[in-house]
Formats: sequence, structure tokens, C-alpha cells
Amino acid sequence: MADNKYVYFFGGGKADGKGDMKDLLGGKGAGLAEMTNAGIPVPPGFTITTDVCALFYENNMAVPANVEAQMKEYLGKLEGMLNLKLGDAERPMLLSVRSGAKFSMPGMMDTVLNLGLSDATIRGLIKLTGNERFAWDSYRRFIQMFSNVVMGVEKEVFEHIISHEKERLGIKLDTEFTSENLKELVVLFKERVREVAGRDFPQAGDEQLRMSRDAVFKSWNNPRAITYRKLNSIPSNLGTAVNIQAMVFGNMGDTSGTGVGFTRNPSTGAKEFYGEYLTNAQGEDVVAGTRTPRPIANLEQEMPAVYKQLREITTRLEQHYRDIQDFEFTIQENTLFMLQTRAGKRTTQAAVKIAVDMVKEGLISKEEAILRIEPNQLDQLLHPIIDPKAKLEVIAKGLPASPGAATGKVVFDADEAAARGDKEKLILVRTETCPDDIHGMHSAQGILTARGGMTSHAAVVARGMGKCCVAGCEDIRVDEKNRKFTADGITIKENDHITLDGSTGRVIFGEAPLIEPTLSGDFAEIMTWVDEMRTLKVRANADIPRDAQVAREFGAEGIGLCRTEHMFFAEDRLPHVQEMILADNVEDREAALKVLLPMQRSDFKGLMREMKGYPVTIRLLDPPLHEFLPKREELMVEVAVAKATGGDAKKIAQREKLLHRVEELHEFNPMLGHRGCRLGITYPEITRMQVRAILEAACELSKEGQAVIPEIMIPLVGHVNELKNQKALVIETAEQVMKEQGITLEYLVGTMIELPRAAVTADEIAKEAQFFSFGTNDLTQTTFGFSRDDSAKFIRHYIDTGLMEKDPFAVLDQDGVGKLVAMGVEKGRSTRPDLKVGICGEHGGEPSSVEFCHNTGLNYVSCSPYRVPIARIASAQAAIKSKGKSISRDK
Amino acid sequence: MADNKYVYFFGGGKADGKGDMKDLLGGKGAGLAEMTNAGIPVPPGFTITTDVCALFYENNMAVPANVEAQMKEYLGKLEGMLNLKLGDAERPMLLSVRSGAKFSMPGMMDTVLNLGLSDATIRGLIKLTGNERFAWDSYRRFIQMFSNVVMGVEKEVFEHIISHEKERLGIKLDTEFTSENLKELVVLFKERVREVAGRDFPQAGDEQLRMSRDAVFKSWNNPRAITYRKLNSIPSNLGTAVNIQAMVFGNMGDTSGTGVGFTRNPSTGAKEFYGEYLTNAQGEDVVAGTRTPRPIANLEQEMPAVYKQLREITTRLEQHYRDIQDFEFTIQENTLFMLQTRAGKRTTQAAVKIAVDMVKEGLISKEEAILRIEPNQLDQLLHPIIDPKAKLEVIAKGLPASPGAATGKVVFDADEAAARGDKEKLILVRTETCPDDIHGMHSAQGILTARGGMTSHAAVVARGMGKCCVAGCEDIRVDEKNRKFTADGITIKENDHITLDGSTGRVIFGEAPLIEPTLSGDFAEIMTWVDEMRTLKVRANADIPRDAQVAREFGAEGIGLCRTEHMFFAEDRLPHVQEMILADNVEDREAALKVLLPMQRSDFKGLMREMKGYPVTIRLLDPPLHEFLPKREELMVEVAVAKATGGDAKKIAQREKLLHRVEELHEFNPMLGHRGCRLGITYPEITRMQVRAILEAACELSKEGQAVIPEIMIPLVGHVNELKNQKALVIETAEQVMKEQGITLEYLVGTMIELPRAAVTADEIAKEAQFFSFGTNDLTQTTFGFSRDDSAKFIRHYIDTGLMEKDPFAVLDQDGVGKLVAMGVEKGRSTRPDLKVGICGEHGGEPSSVEFCHNTGLNYVSCSPYRVPIARIASAQAAIKSKGKSISRDK
Repeated sequence: MADNKYVYFFGGGKADGKGDMKDLLGGKGAGLAEMTNAGIPVPPGFTITTDVCALFYENNMAVPANVEAQMKEYLGKLEGMLNLKLGDAERPMLLSVRSGAKFSMPGMMDTVLNLGLSDATIRGLIKLTGNERFAWDSYRRFIQMFSNVVMGVEKEVFEHIISHEKERLGIKLDTEFTSENLKELVVLFKERVREVAGRDFPQAGDEQLRMSRDAVFKSWNNPRAITYRKLNSIPSNLGTAVNIQAMVFGNMGDTSGTGVGFTRNPSTGAKEFYGEYLTNAQGEDVVAGTRTPRPIANLEQEMPAVYKQLREITTRLEQHYRDIQDFEFTIQENTLFMLQTRAGKRTTQAAVKIAVDMVKEGLISKEEAILRIEPNQLDQLLHPIIDPKAKLEVIAKGLPASPGAATGKVVFDADEAAARGDKEKLILVRTETCPDDIHGMHSAQGILTARGGMTSHAAVVARGMGKCCVAGCEDIRVDEKNRKFTADGITIKENDHITLDGSTGRVIFGEAPLIEPTLSGDFAEIMTWVDEMRTLKVRANADIPRDAQVAREFGAEGIGLCRTEHMFFAEDRLPHVQEMILADNVEDREAALKVLLPMQRSDFKGLMREMKGYPVTIRLLDPPLHEFLPKREELMVEVAVAKATGGDAKKIAQREKLLHRVEELHEFNPMLGHRGCRLGITYPEITRMQVRAILEAACELSKEGQAVIPEIMIPLVGHVNELKNQKALVIETAEQVMKEQGITLEYLVGTMIELPRAAVTADEIAKEAQFFSFGTNDLTQTTFGFSRDDSAKFIRHYIDTGLMEKDPFAVLDQDGVGKLVAMGVEKGRSTRPDLKVGICGEHGGEPSSVEFCHNTGLNYVSCSPYRVPIARIASAQAAIKSKGKSISRDK
Repeated sequence: MADNKYVYFFGGGKADGKGDMKDLLGGKGAGLAEMTNAGIPVPPGFTITTDVCALFYENNMAVPANVEAQMKEYLGKLEGMLNLKLGDAERPMLLSVRSGAKFSMPGMMDTVLNLGLSDATIRGLIKLTGNERFAWDSYRRFIQMFSNVVMGVEKEVFEHIISHEKERLGIKLDTEFTSENLKELVVLFKERVREVAGRDFPQAGDEQLRMSRDAVFKSWNNPRAITYRKLNSIPSNLGTAVNIQAMVFGNMGDTSGTGVGFTRNPSTGAKEFYGEYLTNAQGEDVVAGTRTPRPIANLEQEMPAVYKQLREITTRLEQHYRDIQDFEFTIQENTLFMLQTRAGKRTTQAAVKIAVDMVKEGLISKEEAILRIEPNQLDQLLHPIIDPKAKLEVIAKGLPASPGAATGKVVFDADEAAARGDKEKLILVRTETCPDDIHGMHSAQGILTARGGMTSHAAVVARGMGKCCVAGCEDIRVDEKNRKFTADGITIKENDHITLDGSTGRVIFGEAPLIEPTLSGDFAEIMTWVDEMRTLKVRANADIPRDAQVAREFGAEGIGLCRTEHMFFAEDRLPHVQEMILADNVEDREAALKVLLPMQRSDFKGLMREMKGYPVTIRLLDPPLHEFLPKREELMVEVAVAKATGGDAKKIAQREKLLHRVEELHEFNPMLGHRGCRLGITYPEITRMQVRAILEAACELSKEGQAVIPEIMIPLVGHVNELKNQKALVIETAEQVMKEQGITLEYLVGTMIELPRAAVTADEIAKEAQFFSFGTNDLTQTTFGFSRDDSAKFIRHYIDTGLMEKDPFAVLDQDGVGKLVAMGVEKGRSTRPDLKVGICGEHGGEPSSVEFCHNTGLNYVSCSPYRVPIARIASAQAAIKSKGKSISRDK
């Protein structure tokens, strides 16, 4: 009976195994077989199967004799193929020995490189490569690796010798060792190995090979591999294969060489062969920069046959993997070996061009093209970025709160920013921002805050403006009064230059060069495909006509959230808003509201006109009223100081009265206080004014012949009775306005679902609501009990220590908050099957959250205008991924 | 074929119908039949069945002739029985006509009294009663009622005439009308009826009766009845019956009379016949107080037979209804009629005695006795109450935050309260309290705050101390600086007397008389039955040994929540706590913690010693650290004023440094900030110190031979990884301490479930937790998005306007928060079936919430020591009610 086959050869254009034999050959072994069969010249070698791993453990940690015999046979074949020999002093063959299980377990098991080197074979290597230093360096590395992995000698043993030698020689870097020094190191290493391991470092190639192979099998059960398998649910009985592969050398003279390249230009995406190489060199030489590599085109003259083969192979690789390839190759004495190939990293611009080109070339489908785009990277196309080549002095890191880059002079005051922002580029730096800073934020190029999370005021407003923002930068200490901030020991004063990278959170000292974004025709093309694929609608959060216009340009299909309060902060309005708040009776409040009415009406009219018939969701007043008043503690200080210093009694009395009202409105936890629909319930006249403004605007537009569908949204509903109360007011006012205007038009009344109680009682609430919009910012706050303004500090600690993977204000927490969203959708539709459901939290523009929204059956997402393209792509990707899958809600 | 029976007679000790014929006779008719059959002498009469109501509507709003015939027959029988005649000028019979459907619809349908009066019959009534004024007053009332109900004349028509007459006569009260005046009123009324209704007021008794009967049938479909039925899901086809009953008169001479009474003493519960009566009088005379009624015992001499019958009847009524009866009777010419009987209102003390006595008398079971106690009223037994007879000047009303009553001089400062509280009775009045007011709260008799809800600091601490508190009293305005507050236009200065009623929220001007509580043997007895019945354990929330002792005395079976931070506010500790917080490195923090360690250890030891082997759940540090530091705004003012007025530079610098750290710790929404397990995660040394203190205390006690089971509770867990992190620290520290102490003892590690995310991911969390304790205060805050400190204002508005039924901080919101609790229990037990589950929010002592906890399958509730008896009774009631019912969790 024929012996089982335990060893699979690959090389010379043919392999014993195949790509689908991962069970037997492991992932790496099967890949090597596949590439070989595909005609890719990978360095030849053989794979010892995973079956042998089991036999090894059954057989008392030893490889059975029949396997040894097969291995010997293929080793001979390999030597023949390369015209080299393991352990030969003239033409030594060097090998790598690597593990390779069915599932990748990166770094968990052992690897040995340069196997075959010894006191004898080193001479051969020197002769073959003519590079004595390279040979000795390889030898000393081999001793280090082998002794550690196979013989159990601690790494520190060698590090200690190296340090000691450097000191003795008065050098600092490994690269300063001469060939002679390295030779001495080898001697010292071997001595130390004998002392520690109690035996000589093995000199015979076959012994080195056997020992390494057995070490790989043993490493299958080392503690970190066991833990990794547990964590990743990989069965422990699969075993690992062992891959033994010839090492190849690009430094064996002028007919040898090495290089790297891309099948297309990774910066622009242009279809051009791109890369560089060096003759008579190792891969490290290309990387180290000690010699200047030549453009790959030169290879055509130097080694035309090899060049031709390389072009053919890389073209085939690209065809095979259907993506741009980033490859490494080595030429050993005129023979080309591919060392590695993988999908090439590319700029977003290139990614878009390549995806579109490949569809046109028939290489990939439109769906695949869309899936190739990393939605988050689109920011690179929509905002300026810092020139990747620039040298930067990073002085602090905060939260990447709003993408893009900005550079300018530091100012610490919103008024100052507003005053100078037209003429100069400014960065507004604040401990935190508040609604009255908006004019300054608008005039600045970018915003930096020391406090606040991904949904803090600064972050939300900046994203809405498409303006770069680094928030919650706990590394800096802002001293607004003295107009300076410190970071990393440096003090930055007013008018010093800094640069912000809102995509990474970096704060950079000085003026870094920026690259302005460009939107290509390819981008426009792929976006039309995106819109064909997706089922989820994408709306924008926009408060003013200008934002609405941007949103439309980016493809928004409506406004999912207009925050009416943002209009209240305008300079000409705030006094009336304050009057309304300070009123201590209904009449005075109504008088102030009467002044605000025409302003709101004109805002809404502008917004709805801009949206040209697309739905516009307007949320009634949401924030606590004291946000519109002077800060309590500042007033306290002002009054106390004025009194202590004998200020004007009349003025003091006036300010004290104001303070008194501010005290009355003061809340310990405003986020959980008198806001949202609670305002409209206690001050129904505010709801009436806002609804009147919306409906009057809609009626006027309708008379002008424009289609309008206002969607009136009640915020912060926790109990269905709150919605009932406000809905009755809305309907009463709307009917009245339509009667006055002599027009009937369609409008919807719905609610935010942004409190856990709303989600768990969504069945009741849906009976009263024509639509739901999940406010996942607030829902995240209350579900986690995290204040968005205060939690940045410990969330960062959580993420740094691995306690939490992602900031839940940036990426929707699907396990917790998502469960409530799913519950809300399900319960809501149980009593109102045609309920329209959207999301208007910041998550509406975050790709993984958008996918969740698609899978949970939402009708639309709404996000900052600048994130609309991202949401469009993400929703198309979600649609493509879920095609054919049934949507399951909560598993 | 015999005609259907449409009219059912009752009277003379016999009725045609029975008590179970509610469908046909309506609830009232069936009840009258039942009482008659039981030998209770109710005024006789007859019931026209609900079938007739249907016939009436089918028959064009008219009663068919055969029904009229039956009615006439029974009317004759009634006249015979009473020796009176409808419409007779000598001995007129007067009737009442009342609706009565199967289900009670109080006040929804129509009633006519004194039917039968006319210009002719009035003379007979005067003769029979000898009371001319009574007769004319009855007539004018009859005209008003009949004209309104039957003829549709607006009530205002008569009110207008009455006002006009009063003006003319120069009088103010109805009682000032003379007999002659009333006679004139009758004339004026009849004239006006003719004008408005277009016909004379009907004078014939049979016409009056027919019209009234038809009006009652019609009232079944009046708009308010239709709405009521819709709201209460009562089918609209049931119809109403009509009850026609003789009016009886206690003012027909010296053989007539009227009275009220109780079968037992409603104040003490003693088994004694209790009541009062008047001869020759109507019921109104007893109530009006114009004549002084005599004790009911006197009746025995005056009318021995009637007295004997009354004793027999009321005894039978008590036996029949198995409860103390509150009855009204009238004697008409030596014949006793029972007008009403119902369960008697009683004091809590009486309720307990009556329940226990009735069990001993074999009248009710122990279960029924327990169900008879209103748990919330137990407060009356445990705390002083305001003498119910006292005349009070109520000047404001706040939340009934902690029960009992207290009276004393007003102080506005905790230090002042602490300094004087030993010698004087004081009431501490503050805008709100904070942790450093605790010593003053402790020394005061009661606490009044203008801000904060049912779970505000003042409320929670006061309940824990068993001290009277009125919180969130928005009616008052506190001016702490000038040591005064205003309410209802009155200014109360320091040292003025006020009285608080913490059970109703009343604030009373002056010193009201209080009644001290007494606990009877009956109470002790019923509590032993309670403990036999209940399955839910009851623990107490207690932070210090003294509270633990009170808890044990009230029957607590362990401590469900020890808030370790409450120990931090003691005068000798706060400086070290502040040192710990202000430390800017781990070493300094550990040094401060080292000082705190022995203090905490001794606290825990005292607590566990007091609990004698019952479980003690200790929660690790929970509140945000800045609660332990001076207030930010006060420091700001201090520093600013000192600077403006040229204060000592060194001292300013010192305070500025402190301010700086306070600024760093400042949070916008501390409730959602850096607190709970987030503290222990960022400052692991705090967790280590606390766990060490707990375990050292436990080990020491164990060595002293006492059983101890510490349960270490991690607060504010939202993500399982937070628990994992802290649990690892707890176990590591505990193992270390036990090793040091050479002892092994049992301890548990569990978590609070107080965030919505914890509830929805309870399956994950339960894998790491040996117990759950629902923190429903915080869970209510986050589920509703209501800050407990800020929401009192609008919650009050919600309740006042009917938008919300109950304050969710006082009564667990079963529809929302309760859903999350049920979800948490179910998910938790899905991965850990033996999970121990309790509740330690303020709801743990609220009866309806306790019932919910029982039904949801919790193992225990934990509440303030003074609420332990309430929770024990409530849980026994829940067990009795659910006996035989299967527990369903979430429907």
C-alpha cells in the first residue's frame, strides 16, 4: 500500500497541492501552491502537512520516519532545482521555516530564517554574494533567531552582548558594526549559546532543519497560540503545517537584484507600471536608503527578459486578484522570484480612479468598485489634508472631531475670530465652545478645544460647517484670560501659528503645508452607481439655507434635522430670545415670541426653498433655556466684584436681577433637565410660535408654486403623553394657520427617539407619531450614562486601555444603543407598520453605523452635509453586502 | 303566556331580585335587593330592569305599556307598605329616582330626589314633619333638580334668581332664607320654568315619576356617559336600570330621628359601638352642627327596640362585609331604615388593631388582614404626625420627600443647625442640600428645600435618617444670605417657627401640635404573619452602624446598599478625601488613601458586626469627586473678589491653585460624568483601598467568630468590560488580604444595574456578576432623561396637568423603567440561572414597586430603614395576591 503523502512540493511552475487545500496545507501552504500553479515564480519549497502535526504529538513529539523520508526526498528536489545544497560550503542553500495553520494566527507561532548558515557555509555565501558584511550579519541574526525559537535562549542574552560590544566599540547603531565586528559577534553568540543551552550551536544544516520544523510544530501549543485560538474560536485540533522555502538572494552579482512596485500609480490611480529596483542588492538596501534605487522602467534595458516576465506576472496578478498589486521581487542570477504581492495601499483619489477604471476594463463589477472605497477616507477628497510629505512637529493629540486640516494664527476669543477672520486665517482655541461662539467658529479655519467629546458642541457645530476640529484635547491647557495655551511643554501665544488635523486629532506647531481637495469625474461617476445600489435615503442635518445648499450639492435627499435653536443665537435675535426667557408671565413671553416669529418664518422659508420639495424635518426648540443666557458663575463673579469694589448700585441691582433669573434656570445636569418637549409643554406659546413660523413659511412657498412637506419633530419624548400634548398643539396651530392662509397642505408630526424610555415604549409612541428619528447622540448619552461634554477624558482612557474598542459617540454602539434602536423600530412598526424611521445623530454619517441602520430597516440616515457622500457610499455598501441576506433585527 | 318581569320590588325584608343579578338590575338595584333579603331595612322601592332601557330606545324613547302597568302595580305596593301615597295632599309619598348600570359610572347619569312634591303635597309634608322651612326648602330643591335634569333648564337660571333674592333681602347664605322666603322662591322658580321650558312645572306625582324615569334612560347616552364608557371599556349596549325608592324622613316627630355610626372605634380600633344621632331631624342637621348630636348609647334609653335592631343590623353588616362599617340610618315613626353602609375609614393604628382582632374573631384570614393594611400609611405608626384636629396655616406645598412631621425654629445653615440642634428643635431650610450639610440635617428635626425631587440629596438622606423632609418646594424662595424665606407672601425669618408635614409636603406657619407614634402589640403580631407570607427578602440601605441597628429593629434581613462615600463626609475624613482628590500623582493619592483605610475598615466592621451574619452589600465609591471639593462658583467669586480688593497674594495663589483643580474636575452633567466604576477604573488605587478595608474588616470579624458575607458591588457599570476590570482588582486585592490574614472567607462580587445599557446587555454582564442590584434611581434618571435634581419643577407640572400620573422617582415606572428591569432580570438569568437579584433604589420601599419586584422575580428589595416595615407588608401582599398566579415577566 502506498504511503500517505505528507509533503507537498511547489516550484518550477508546478505544485503538488492546490489553493483549496487549506485544511491540509494551511493557509500559507495552499497560497504558495496556488501561486506556483498560476505560474508566479515564488521561491520553491515544500509544505509538511497539518496531518503531520497530529502525528507529531501522537508520536511523543517526534516526526515519524516515513515523513522524514518524504522530506528528504523533496529537499533533494529543491537543491537540484536551485543548484544549491543545504550545508554545502561552496553553494549553500538557505531556507526559511514557517508555520501556517488553516486560519491565520499572525505572530502566534514560530519562524526561522536563513537556516543553513554555519561556520562552513558562510564562506560559500560570501563567495556567492561577494558581500562579507551581509553574510556575517545574516549569520548572527540566524543564531539569534534559531537559539531563541528552537533552543529557548532568551532574546536578552544576545541584546546584552550587542550593547556591550557597541559600548566597547564606541558606536550607537547596528549599522555601524563592520564585517569584522559582526564576525566577532558570531563568536561571542556561539559561546554564550553553549553556556546557556548547554550544547553547541548546531552546525549541520539537516539538524538545523529538523530542529526548526519540530519547534514550529511545538509552537502550535504555546500559551499565546492557545489563548489566540480561544479568543478567535479556532479549534485546537486543526494543527499547523510547516512551510520550508528556499531563501533567494538579490545580491549575487550583477545578474541579481531586488525591487518593489505597484501595478498602477498608488497616488493618482493612473494605469502605469510603477516602482523601483536595485541590482546586486537585498530588499533591505532598497528600504534603508543607503543606495538610490532606479525607476523600474530602467530594468527594461538592463534585464529585458526579466522585465518582460515581471510585467507579465504582475499583470496576471492584478487580473487574478482584481485589484492594484503592491509587489516585492528578487532576481537571483537572472531568475525572477516574487516574494510578496498584496492589494496596494492607495490614496482615496487613486482608489476612486482605480475602481472606476477597473469597472470599465471589465475587471470588477460596479458593486465591487463601490465596496473598494473606504467611506471614511472620502474626507480626503472633501477637505484639505496636510501634505503627507511634510515634516510635522506634533505637540498634542485630541479627538478627530471634524475632518480636514487647517492652519492659521491662534486666537482665544470668538469675537476676535469673527472680527479678523475675513482677512486672516485663524484657529479658534477654547477650553470648550458654547452656542455664543458660533460666529467665531464660523470665521475661523479650524477649532481646537481642550474639553468635550465627539458630540460636544464644538464637534457637532464644526462638522455641520464642514470645518476642521480637534476636540477634547486633554493634552493642552488653555488659559483664555492670558491668551495662551500650553502643550507638551511648549507655550503657544495668541497669533502663533498652529495646524490642526481634524482627521487624526493631531495638533501641529507651525504652519504645515496643506493640499486642497479636488473632486474628479470618476468620483461623480461612482456616486451615480452608489445611488443606483442603495435603498437607504440620505438626508442632511442643516439649520440654515447655506448648509442646505451644500447638502444638496453633496446629494442629500432632504433635511433630517433642522435645529431651530441654532437660529436663536444670531446677534439680532439673541436679545429677543433672552427677553422671552426672562419674561415672568405669558404675555411678556408672547410679546418676545412675536418678534422672533417673522425671523423664524424667513429661516424656514429659505431652508424649504433650498430643498426644492424634498422633505424638511424641523425639530422644535430643544436645549435648556439657560444656554441662551449669560453664564451663571460669570455673573456671580461680576456682581460680587462690583459690590466689593463699590460699583454703580443701580447697575448692580439690574445685574443681580438677571443673576436671580439665571439662578432660577440653573440646572445641575442640564442634559437631563428642562429641555426638549418639556419646554414646549411648560411654555406652549413657544411651540405655537415655532409651528406657526413653519406653517406660514410652507403656505407662502406653496402659494409660490413650490412643493413643500414640512415634518415637525417633537424632541426628547419619553412618554407618549408628552407627544400627545405637543401634537395637539401642533395640529391646532397648523389648522389655524392653514385656515388663515386659505390653503391646505400636507405636513407630518413625528418625534425623536432619543431616550431609552422612548425606545422601550415605542409601540405606544408610534400610535401618535407619523415618523421616528433616532437621536443617537442623546440616546448614547442616556444609554451609557455618558455626558458627551464630560466623558471624553475617561472614554479616551477606556480606548487606550482596550476596555472599549470605539468611542460610542463616533461609532454607534450596536450591542447596547443599537439594541434599543432595533427595539424602537420593531415596536414602532408593530403599531404603525408604515412608520417612517430615520436617524439624525452624528452616527448617521459613520459607515459602520450606516450599515447598521440599513440592516435594522431604517428608511433614511441624516448627517452633516459634508458627510452626505460618505453616508451614500456606506449605505450602498450595506445594500450590496446584505443583498440576498434576510434582514434580522436583534440576535 | 306570562308577561316578562320588568320591575323588581324590594322592601319589608324581602326582594324579588338577588345580589347576583347585576346584569338585569344594575349594581345598585342588585345591592338593594341583597340588603333587603339580608334583613337590612333599606327604604323600600323597586327597580326597572336594564332590559327596559333597550326597549325604551327601540320603542322611540318611550316605555312600553306593559312595563308601565307593572310599574303601577309596584308603586301601589310601595304606597301600601308605607301608608303614604304619591301625590296625596295628606300623607304624600316622596321618591328618589336613580340610575344604576351593571358597572358603576359615578356621577355620569341623572338622579332626582324629593319627587312627589307639589303645591298640593307640600301641605301634607309640612303636617307630617311639622317643619315648614324644611318642606319648602325640599320643594324648591326638587324644582331645581327636576327642571334641570328632566326639563333641560340650565342650573344658572335658578342660581341667578337665588342671588337676586339674597341681594334683595340683604343676606349672604342659603341658610338665612326664612320659610317665607323659600316659599317665594318656589313661586319665582315655577314662573321662570314656564318661561324657559314653555310649560308649567308638572304638579302630578305620576307625571313627575314617568318623566324622571325616562330622563334616566336618556342619560345612558348623554355625552359624558358615552365618554366615560369609552375610557373605561364599558360596552354601550348594557343599558341602565332605574331605581325608584321611597324617601324616608327622620323629622316626622319624636319617634323619628337620624344618625351615623361605626361598628368599631375608627380612631383606636377598639370593638365598641360608636356614633351619634338626633331625634326629629334630617341627616343634614347632624352634619350642619346647628344642633348637638347625642352619643348613640343614649338611643338605647330613648328607643330601646330601635336601638336593639340597629345593633343587630350593624353587627350583621360587619359580619357580612367582614370589615368595620360606617353607616347612616334614619328612623321614621319608630321604623329604622339603613340609608348607607360602607367600609369605615380608620386610622392606621385602628386598621392594624381591627385586622388583628378580626383574625382572632375568625372573621377574616391572616392573608385578608394583611391585605387590609395600606402599607404607605404605616408611616403614621413610625413617625410623629400632625394632630388631625389642629387648625393649620399652610403656606406652601412641596414634595412629600420623607414622612413624619416636625416643628421647630427655622435655620438656614447646616453648621448653625449642628451647633444648636442638641438644645433646640430646628428646621433646616435650604435652596438645596449637599453632602456637607449632613451634620446639620442630622441635628435638625426636619428639612425643607426649595429644589430637588423625590430622590434629591435632601430626600434620600432624610429618608435614610428617618427624618421628616419636604423637598422641591417651588413655592418658597430661600434667601440664605439674609437668613429668610418667603412663601405665599409671608416672610419667615431665622428662628421663626414652622412645621413640616413630610407625608403630604405641607409647610405650615407656626408650631403645630404633633402626635408621637406608638407601636402596638397588634402591629408586632401582624408583622409576624407578614413574614410568614412573603417570599421577597427585605434589606435596608444603611451606611453607618447606627442606621444598621435601626434597620435590624425594623426587621431588615441584610444591607442591600452601603454607600461608602457617605462616610467620606465626616469632619475628620473630608480633608484626607480632598487630599486624595487633589493629588496629581499616584503616590500622593495612595498616601491619602492609606489614612482613609483604617477609618473605612472600622466603619465596615461596625456595619457587619451589627448585621450579625446577614449579607452586607457594600458599593464602591460612586459620586463624582468634585462633590467632595469646595463649590467652583464660590471659589471663583472668592478669588475674583480677593484679587479686586487686593487680598493677600500668597493666599490668593493657594486658592487659585485649588480653583484650578476644581476647574479640571468640573463637569457639565456630573450625573453622567466621571463617577461610579469609572473612578475605580481610572484610579484603581481607590478600589484597592476600599476592597482592602472591606476584606480586612471581614477577616477580623471572622476571627472574632462572627459569620460575615461581604457583597462587593461595582457601581454604574454600562459595559461588561468595566465590570471585568474592577472584578479583577477586587479579586486580586481580596486574595492578597486573605493571604495576609491567613483566612479564607466567602465574598461575592456583583454590580449595580442602573444604566439602560446594563439592562439591555445584562446577559453579558451576568457572566461576570454574582449578583445584580437594580439602582432604579439612576435607571429612572437615564431611562427618562430626568435629572433627579432638576426635574422636580416640570414633573410637578406634568402631574398637575395629568400628563403623568405619578412621580417616577417615587413610584417605579413599570411601563418604561420596569421593562428594562424585567429585561435585565431575564437576560441576567439566561446566562446565570442562580443570579441573585435585588433593588436598592428608593423604590425598594414603595408598595406598588415592591409588588412589581415580587412579580418580576427579584430576590430582595432594599430601602431606607424606616421603610423596611412598609416593604415587608407590601411584599407579603404581593405574595398573597400572586398566589396561584404564574409570574409572567414582560408581556
